Amino acid sequence: MSNDNADNVDVSDLRAALPAAAAALSAEDRAGLVNALKNKLQSLAGQHNDILETLSPNVRKRVEVLRETQSEHDELEKKFFEERAALEAKYEKFYEPLYTKRYEIVNGVLKVEGETNEAVIDGGGNKSAEEKGVPDFWLTAMKSNEMLADKISERDEGALKYLKDIKWGRINDPKGFKLEFFFDSNPYFKNSVLAKTYHVVDDENEPILEKAIGTKIEWYPGKCLTQKVLKKKPKKGSKIVKPITKTENCNSFFNFFNPPQIPDDDDDIDDELAEELQDRMEHDYNIGSTIRDKLIPHAVSWFTGEAVQGNEYDGLEGDFDDSDDEDGDDEEDEDGDKEEDEEDEEEEGKGKKKRNGSAKAGRGQQGELPPLCQQQ
Amino acid sequence: MSNDNADNVDVSDLRAALPAAAAALSAEDRAGLVNALKNKLQSLAGQHNDILETLSPNVRKRVEVLRETQSEHDELEKKFFEERAALEAKYEKFYEPLYTKRYEIVNGVLKVEGETNEAVIDGGGNKSAEEKGVPDFWLTAMKSNEMLADKISERDEGALKYLKDIKWGRINDPKGFKLEFFFDSNPYFKNSVLAKTYHVVDDENEPILEKAIGTKIEWYPGKCLTQKVLKKKPKKGSKIVKPITKTENCNSFFNFFNPPQIPDDDDDIDDELAEELQDRMEHDYNIGSTIRDKLIPHAVSWFTGEAVQGNEYDGLEGDFDDSDDEDGDDEEDEDGDKEEDEEDEEEEGKGKKKRNGSAKAGRGQQGELPPLCQQQ
Repeated sequence: MSNDNADNVDVSDLRAALPAAAAALSAEDRAGLVNALKNKLQSLAGQHNDILETLSPNVRKRVEVLRETQSEHDELEKKFFEERAALEAKYEKFYEPLYTKRYEIVNGVLKVEGETNEAVIDGGGNKSAEEKGVPDFWLTAMKSNEMLADKISERDEGALKYLKDIKWGRINDPKGFKLEFFFDSNPYFKNSVLAKTYHVVDDENEPILEKAIGTKIEWYPGKCLTQKVLKKKPKKGSKIVKPITKTENCNSFFNFFNPPQIPDDDDDIDDELAEELQDRMEHDYNIGSTIRDKLIPHAVSWFTGEAVQGNEYDGLEGDFDDSDDEDGDDEEDEDGDKEEDEEDEEEEGKGKKKRNGSAKAGRGQQGELPPLCQQQ
Repeated sequence: MSNDNADNVDVSDLRAALPAAAAALSAEDRAGLVNALKNKLQSLAGQHNDILETLSPNVRKRVEVLRETQSEHDELEKKFFEERAALEAKYEKFYEPLYTKRYEIVNGVLKVEGETNEAVIDGGGNKSAEEKGVPDFWLTAMKSNEMLADKISERDEGALKYLKDIKWGRINDPKGFKLEFFFDSNPYFKNSVLAKTYHVVDDENEPILEKAIGTKIEWYPGKCLTQKVLKKKPKKGSKIVKPITKTENCNSFFNFFNPPQIPDDDDDIDDELAEELQDRMEHDYNIGSTIRDKLIPHAVSWFTGEAVQGNEYDGLEGDFDDSDDEDGDDEEDEDGDKEEDEEDEEEEGKGKKKRNGSAKAGRGQQGELPPLCQQQ
């Protein structure tokens, strides 16, 4: 498996051969040259030639024909990937005007037929101004999805009411996809767009997550939702009289924009930490995929609750652990006076446990592991 | 989320309405009826109507328009799924003759150009009969893939030499896919085909694994590779003189045909067991997907070792744990006299750890979670 000697291989013979040969080559010669180059490059990779060399001449001939057959397959497969990408792009274009219409209705830009201009009479018989568009559309939609609801604390809801739209798009250099959360001006942070970008390495059209990047949120003073100031009463008899204040990270959907990072220095990571990090990154990717594949295309169905029906096959866990309901915000969040040192760990644990509850295989090229469903 | 009362809902109004209405309906009436039925069914689901009822009349009108927009989207999406399935089927047809040619060359049915009839001179200068086709083709290919190599014990190799072909195909009722392993007649088991079938629930074209089924292997006496007879020497001073023999399950690729099952009685499963079972089923599904998406389409490249190059992005674990090489059969397997009570557990642990090393998102509708790759 070692490519250590790849740089030391003498390629002078190739360099020497090329200019002389390039002048007047027959098609056959050219094919031969291409083959020689290919073989040279393959031997640089230093891998499969070992196997081929152990084969008897006849078997080697057979394997050479098999390799041609494999090349034919791979050419076809490349075309398949291209056609599939074109098909996906075609449909994304079809969806676009529907998403625009949704945006306009949700945000009151577009009036629908039959809308009246009458003010609303509230429960107490008071007249109040008519709501614009569909209030709390995205917050309600997100809270219908178990995986996302799990991430939304009560404190977050105030800010998520300002969500005007969520969009996604592919990125190409590097490959991956980007989610954009568009916010109305709000008292929590300055940003009007919070983005989350996933970079993948496209290994033969089989994406491998490389890293996730989030927008740095510019919180207004005292409004940060991802940190909490905890007041701890001094112990009885302690000489300290003032309450101790401590800033701690806390559960918040907005942690989504500060995704786990692989440390620069590999030496800092032992096996256990690496596995934990991998689980966290996977979970983070699952949330991103859920937003891309489920929430964005079917936001109205999540808002109305129709999409929730799909959850009847919500994985094994659902059968044995009914303690989390959709609105299952962590109770701890509502109690600012509590010690919450284990919060992050707990969140991860939960993430891992729930991983399969919502991680269904997505449409398009970036799929996910299918979760298990209960026995039928 | 509860559908408990779904069975108790009175649908007599619908039943009564239908025969009378069915006779002479205008297109508009028919649409109205369909809508009424739809609403009835939706109210049976007892979910989204709650939300709609809390909305002011104007907002409700907007949501109704949004729902129409969502329906338009879902119609388009359905067409997308159909077109994608047709595209996949088209390419599967294209691949078919290439796979047949591969089968024929590998098994010596088809001679390639330039093959000689000469016998082979082995290392000792002895003449021996020429090998037919490409010996050990599938065994070698499988051992090149880390995830599969991990499952193959040295004992298995004898049997896997008899593999003539591996194929996969979609199944439709229930949905899923089937892997078939075609074996030459061999001294290990009677079966000529070992199959592994994955059933999935196709929730809006997002498959969820329901269960996996494997062929029962009819081992010849004393040839079973998934169990081992252990001889344990009696302790010194023990009154027992004869060695104690014990039959134990052991690591073997052939365990693939006896996949984990969800017990009939849910009461037997606690949270921890459920999670372990889920991990095992996921791992089993990952192996199946690896065979379908990687091994079968690129078997020649795995055989020659060319496909292994893709492993440079083999996930976080690869960077921190180099102790497993491709041929990393478990040492324990070679030592029949050792106690191996923890073997199964160990295998699971390993599976979990390696999960992402090879689980790249697959082609087609059943994808997987992308593993993480090292920082670039």
